[in-house]
Parts: sequence; structure tokens; C-alpha cells
Amino acid sequence: MSRTPAETRTPRRLAAIDLGSNSFHLLVANYHEEQLQVVAKQGEKVQLAAGLDENDCLSEDAIQRALDCLARFAPFIADVSPRHLRVVGTNALRNAANSDALIHRAEALLGHEIEIIAGREEARLIYLGAAHALADVHGKRLIVDIGGGSTEFIIGERFEPLALESLHMGCVAYTRRFFGDGEITEKSFHQAELAALSELANIRRPYLEMGWSDPVGSSGTIKAVAAVLAACGDSPDGLIHREGLAKLRKQLIKTKRLDKVAMEGLKADRARVFPAGVAILCAIFEAFDLAYMRYSDGALREGVLYDLVGRNTPEDSRLQTLVALQRRYSIDTRQADNVAASACHAFEQVRDAWQLDDEQKQFLTWAAQIHELGQAVSHSQFHRHGAYLLEHSDLPGFSRPEQKSLAFLVRAHRRKFPSKELEALPESLRERYARLARLLRLAVILNHSRPEHAVVDFHVIATGDALRLVLPEALAEHALLINDLQQEMALQQAAGFTFELEPEPADA
Amino acid sequence: MSRTPAETRTPRRLAAIDLGSNSFHLLVANYHEEQLQVVAKQGEKVQLAAGLDENDCLSEDAIQRALDCLARFAPFIADVSPRHLRVVGTNALRNAANSDALIHRAEALLGHEIEIIAGREEARLIYLGAAHALADVHGKRLIVDIGGGSTEFIIGERFEPLALESLHMGCVAYTRRFFGDGEITEKSFHQAELAALSELANIRRPYLEMGWSDPVGSSGTIKAVAAVLAACGDSPDGLIHREGLAKLRKQLIKTKRLDKVAMEGLKADRARVFPAGVAILCAIFEAFDLAYMRYSDGALREGVLYDLVGRNTPEDSRLQTLVALQRRYSIDTRQADNVAASACHAFEQVRDAWQLDDEQKQFLTWAAQIHELGQAVSHSQFHRHGAYLLEHSDLPGFSRPEQKSLAFLVRAHRRKFPSKELEALPESLRERYARLARLLRLAVILNHSRPEHAVVDFHVIATGDALRLVLPEALAEHALLINDLQQEMALQQAAGFTFELEPEPADA
Repeated sequence: MSRTPAETRTPRRLAAIDLGSNSFHLLVANYHEEQLQVVAKQGEKVQLAAGLDENDCLSEDAIQRALDCLARFAPFIADVSPRHLRVVGTNALRNAANSDALIHRAEALLGHEIEIIAGREEARLIYLGAAHALADVHGKRLIVDIGGGSTEFIIGERFEPLALESLHMGCVAYTRRFFGDGEITEKSFHQAELAALSELANIRRPYLEMGWSDPVGSSGTIKAVAAVLAACGDSPDGLIHREGLAKLRKQLIKTKRLDKVAMEGLKADRARVFPAGVAILCAIFEAFDLAYMRYSDGALREGVLYDLVGRNTPEDSRLQTLVALQRRYSIDTRQADNVAASACHAFEQVRDAWQLDDEQKQFLTWAAQIHELGQAVSHSQFHRHGAYLLEHSDLPGFSRPEQKSLAFLVRAHRRKFPSKELEALPESLRERYARLARLLRLAVILNHSRPEHAVVDFHVIATGDALRLVLPEALAEHALLINDLQQEMALQQAAGFTFELEPEPADA
Repeated sequence: MSRTPAETRTPRRLAAIDLGSNSFHLLVANYHEEQLQVVAKQGEKVQLAAGLDENDCLSEDAIQRALDCLARFAPFIADVSPRHLRVVGTNALRNAANSDALIHRAEALLGHEIEIIAGREEARLIYLGAAHALADVHGKRLIVDIGGGSTEFIIGERFEPLALESLHMGCVAYTRRFFGDGEITEKSFHQAELAALSELANIRRPYLEMGWSDPVGSSGTIKAVAAVLAACGDSPDGLIHREGLAKLRKQLIKTKRLDKVAMEGLKADRARVFPAGVAILCAIFEAFDLAYMRYSDGALREGVLYDLVGRNTPEDSRLQTLVALQRRYSIDTRQADNVAASACHAFEQVRDAWQLDDEQKQFLTWAAQIHELGQAVSHSQFHRHGAYLLEHSDLPGFSRPEQKSLAFLVRAHRRKFPSKELEALPESLRERYARLARLLRLAVILNHSRPEHAVVDFHVIATGDALRLVLPEALAEHALLINDLQQEMALQQAAGFTFELEPEPADA
């Protein structure tokens, strides 16, 4: 990428909005000399997950609560460049059957795209935020983040996550599931713990085998537990100890009803989901045989900002992700690089006419670098398999919409132009991604014979939506290439695009 | 597996039927002292691919031709044990939209399952057949098999294939596509060659880089070319030389019409698809810059027999395939082996009641060994991703129906029981595979906490379709396990199955 190093040295305003299942958070900061200086920080208990009905539909009430909150956040991000802002949604939005209903209205309100991120991506970002908040010591640490709908577990060392998991359990979801009638009993508490232990059983052993020296909790539930224990004198060293937690458990069961939960150190708007959060934490202590846990600030929203800072630099985690994909699926990187080079050559020639920018060039390059991904599954229909893998894989650094865009380009790189899949992209992307796909297809055709070096001795001219390819004499006589290009003309025409060849091929 | 070595030392009668796109072949042989002794060999030009209409539907005529041919084959396999018989279908059946129409009637007629095999699997079997027919010399060889609908290219050394590809081009398909009007012109011939070159461009360079010392052709087209050249004195050494092929090409174009093609050495029933076959062979000579090619007997049907011989032995290529999958997708093999051990323990206890046999035990074991395959894609819904990969991957040694059965077990191993996917299995398999899936689910639950050693201290009792699990005291008090098993009881009940627990769990 052609960013100047100078750009990273001037302070930048960055912002993140985290649409969590329990709380929405806003964080605005200046990034200066590798530090984040907080400009604004807001949090509201929107309790989105509590608004999910039995069919996993968000209620109109919950949607309205979310929009009201975002309307209050909006002024804070008015002067932040879109490139320096990310709005991410987590578990409740991952699961809501009607998440589009909220997302479309929220995007209109914020004037910015909302990205639903996968559980492991959430875990990665949480670790990034937590690792920056913690002292930079050696030794592995376990980070636990109990959210409203999911709980993330990361083992990492310094800035590198070694294990990332997101489990389907959270304080809002478990309140609904185990304390739905408002009663807190030994039985309901135990059921919640068992359900959490059942989730934890999937990761318990590998995590214990990997080990850690420092167990850390982030997020509201753990912060609240630490605060309550501190307030009643059960945490002289500021840590959450197993004994203090057990006492808190007993106390909550004695309280009998959710609406009676009130403790020093506990905010009123957290009280209702507190017992479920404590049950999950008890299960975590049991599964991992913890004696204590330390609370630390630094969570998803901080991680999002640090991730924004790292973008377009060698640390860009998306690059690492693509390299890992190339390895796992044994991609022929010479061919991938050749196709990428031809695609970029074409891109630069139509960039202005088609009003494309660096970000789109980056996606085109990435798509080229992994377009043969699906061949490891099967040669037959490999563009479809590649698209499936890109759409469904945990791809650290990529948001769900980014994965879908990449998947579309890979799906579209050969054979019939996938007009139906194009229609499934957000309307704002369709024209650009159809064009990027046409450039990628061209690059693939030009390198069809898998040459040693990329084919770059051609010109493309865009006039409106029409694309014209001008071949040098040497290539224009290449019967195989001409045959491929003629087929491509017909395929593009069938999809409503004009693709012409110059010199016009003689009727073979 | 519990087969005795002695069994492989007594002669066995084996049979293969190959439902090719151009010809159907029958091969019956005795296997004795590591040699196949041919008992019967039949071939008929059914020209299935010629019966595909523009919607890729087989015509009733083509289906009838196929059934008539199989009726003639049937008596030859009457005394062959089903375990020693394989009936495989290739390109035309892979592509026919209504292949079921033929398959159901053909299966009823033969009393045996028909397996549609993938292109690369076809290539693997062809190599196996060809490698046995060729002298066992060192050095790499290229094997080319021009079929009616697809052409396979394999580079291998001795009995090991190093590169396997199947391209979408064949003498029947190309006759329809380029010589559909019955005319042979320089232009139509050239178009056919270009199309073949375009397919070949995908593999040309990696194949050339891998290299070979001995180019060999099998299958009817190449046999016919060799015979025609020999008959007209253009092949004194019995090889197909580039010059002879060029002469043949000219001669065919001069003939002008398909129905006029008649040459010494060429069987009348091959004449119509001969020009397209020659065009494909010309393209192969050009792409690989071949000076000559040698014809050799030994093709798909021989490979099928050698593969049958190798089954249930350490050479079973399916085992190698599963190990490769475990590696590519970083499967936790300890957990996989533990689940397999628990599943087999359960299997042996219900084997008689449920009338299950060794083959089903093998599939249950295999499914256990790769059930976590999809976790490499994403933890979320990993049973679905695993099933997708198993259904769509080229899995050497597995037929398509076998892949579907494995995919079903992996799909069914957790969460809701997939009744819809069960319905999609052939009716004859449904009851057994539902039972295998229930055993696998049980094994997964018992090993949920990822123990160091497999859980095998339990009993299961099958009464009709109902399954009862008897837990030892130590396990019966394990609250987490009981919780999982109670959930499983509900999930099985929802799918119409009875699954009980003994001792009955106390209401938690």
C-alpha cells in the first residue's frame, strides 16, 4: 500500500462503537506516539440480548433502545474520518434473525457501516485491548470476558493470542434462560453453572494444557464482582478470590429474587443480570480451578482502536490471516501473485474512470492472492468451495461484511458471472464489486497458462461500465487466449456487461 | 479390522462395472497370489453422454440403452459377493441432472449399489489400473485417459500417483459440442483443439515442471489411434508419433463428415466420436510437447479391482485420505481416537440387536476420527462445515455415496438431530445411519470434557430402536455429564428416537 510513514506519526482521531449484547460502548481517542489518549467514553446498558424473543427476533422495543443510544453516540463521531471508525456488533446481532432491521436503521443514523464480527474475531480484539492495558510482562495470561451473549477466552503472551475461543454463554442470555421467572434458587443457579460448565468442557482441557500464569477478567460482570467484593471487604488485595466468589453466590441465592438484588458496589442497571454473570464466573473458576482472578480494563472497544491503528501496516492481522489460508489450503503463491499483479495493473488503468480507491485495490489484491483456495477441496467448482470457506471461516482481522465481499470476488472469478450472489451484496457495494470481479476475471484469464511471470503488457480502458482490453501484438495472436477472451465476452454480456477486445479477433 | 490374513490368500472372485460416458465395461477376475486372472471382459458403446440434452438430462433412449447393456452384464456378476463388486459411474452420470432415474433402475436390475465417483478419484483408479499393466520400472510416467466426458491426467511413479487431474473434455461431449452438425471442418476441428488447450492450460505448467520419462495413453480413443496408425503403416514401432497424428488429423478433415469416417483399424461403433477424440489428443500432444505416446491396456475397471483387493488392508487408500484430512484441518487426534474408541465400545454392544456389520463399524470409526474437521473453519456450526467439506472434497478411495454417508454422520454428531439430512440419504441406509449417528453422538458426549483416555466404562442396550445407557456409579454422579445426557434425551426424542438413562437421573 502507498501510505506514507509520516501519516502514522501525526495524531489521528479514532473511534469505536461496540454494539454488545448487554451494553453499547463508545470510545473516541487520539492516537499519538503509539498511545491512545481517550477523548470520549460512553457506555449504556441497552440489553439487546434481553430483547430477543423465543424466535431470536429483536423486539421493536429493543431496537428502539439501541437507536436511542446510538443517537446519543452519533455527535461524538461526527468529525472522525470513516477510515478511522469501526462499529462492531457481537453475539446478540450475530444471533438475531432480524438483525437487518436494526442494522439498516443504525447505519443510516450513524452514516457508517456496522460490522457483525465472529466470536473468535471478538476474542482476538478483546485480547488486543486487554494486552495493551496490562503491563508488558513475559508469561502467558488467560483473559476472560463475560459478555451479554457470549464469553471469550483467550490465552496469549504479550501481544500475541495463542488460543481464541468464544462460547455461547453470557449474562443477559443466561438471565433469560435460567432466571426468566425472576427467582434465584439454588437449583436455577446450579442449572446455569452446569450449562456454563458444559460449554467450558469443550475448551477446558486444551486450555489447562496450554496453561497461564496470570488469570485476568475484563468486561462489566467481572468489574462488578470485583467492586462488590471490594465494597464488603472480601477483597483486600483487589483480586477476586474463590472464597469471596462463593460467599457472593450464597448471598445472591438468599436474595431470592432478581428485583431484590442490590449490593454496595453494584450499579442498579447491572443488578438484574448480575446473578447469571456470577453463575458463569463460578463455573469458570471451577472449570479452570482458579484460586483468584484479576480485573483489568481494556476490552473490545480498545482492541478495535488498536486494530485500526495496525491496519495498512505490516502488523495488519488480515495479511497474516491470508498467509495462513494460503498455507492451510496449499495455494500456488506464484500463480496467486501473478494474478494479483495483473489485476493491479488493470486496476490502476481504470481507477479514475471507475472511481475506485486504495481500499478496493487492497480487496482485489487479497482476492487474487487466495482465489484458488477451493482447489484444496476439489477442482470441480472450486470457486464455490473457496467462497464457502471465506464466508464461513474465522478470519482474524476481517469483519463479516469484509469476508462476504472477499467471498463474492472468489465466487465470481471464473465461469458464469454470479449475478444472484452480486444482488446479495449490500446495494452500496454492488457496482464496485461487480467491477472488481470483472478485473479479477480478466487477470485470471490472462494468466490462465500459469506463466512464470505475471502478464502486464496489456491495456484496459473503461468507458462508463464498458471495459475494453487492448492486447499487444504478441498476445493478440495467442489463439488460446483469444478463445478464452471470446468466451468471457459472452459471459459478461450474459450478465449485462460490455467487454470488448482490441484488435477485434478475426473469426476463428 | 478383524479380517484374517488367510482370507487374502484364497482366490477371490472380483468384479467391476464401469458406467463410462462413452462405453460401459464389465470385468470379472479371480484374484490369486497377487494376480488378477480375467474371467470375463465385456464392453459396449452405450454412449451415455451422447444422450444428454441441452439441460443435461439423459434421454429415455440413452437410459434404455444403458439398462439393456446392464441386463447383459448382470449374469456375469450373479455369483460375485457384493463385497467384491463395485459399480462406478463417471462423468456423464456426474453431470446428468436426472442421473437418479437411471441409477435407481440400474441398481434394482443389478441388485447392487452404483457409486458416482469424482474426477480425481477416477484418475486415481485409472492410475492404479495402468500402473499394474505397465512394467514396474523406475521413473515418472504420464498416464492420459481420454474418456467420453472427461479426460484424466496422472503423473505417478510405480504405484504412487503424484498428480491427479480430471478435465472436462471427452470424445462424446466434444463430438456433440464441436461436430454436432455432423461436419468435420478445419474450423470445427481447431475449435475443439482450442477448447481442449484451454482446459489443459490449467495443468500444463505444473505437469511440465513435475516432468515424466514415459507418456502412456489408455482408453478406447488412444487405442483406436494406435490401431489406425499401425494399420496404415505410420507406426512401425507401435507408438503414436506426432507426425502420424498430424497425418490422421488431415485425413479426418478431408473426410468432411462424421458418417463417412471409416478407416482400417477403426471399429465402426467408435467412428462417430473418433474425430473429437483425435482433436483432444492433438491438443494434449501440443500442450505437453509430446513427440510420441505409448498405448497401454489397464484402465479404470482394472484399477477398481486392484483397489477392492487393497481394501481393509494397510494400503486402503481411504485411511491415507483420512489421515491427510486430519493433518490439513489440524484435528486433535487424541480426542478423535477417544471418541472412536467409545463409539466402537458402544457399537459392539448393540451390533447384534441392530444388525450392524463390520463395514458400518468402519464408517462409524472414520466419522469419529474426523468429526471435528470443521473446527478449522469455525467453531460456530463446525458440524455443518465438516459435513460440507466431506461432501465436496476430493477424497481418494471414497465413492460419492460413501462421502455423503460420512458427511451425514459428521453433520449429525452434535446439536439438533438432522432429520432432514437423514431423509436425503438413500432409503436403504437411513435406519442404520440414524443408529450410527446416535452412537457417535453418545461417544462425543461421553468424551465432552476431552479426557486423556477414552470413556469405555459404560453399557448400552438396544431394544428395538430404543437405546438405554447404563452408567457406572462414578459417571452417574457426574453432574455435567448427566446434564449433557438429559439434553441428548430431549434432542433424540424430538427426532422420534428413544434414549434412556440408567440409573434414571434424579431431578437436578
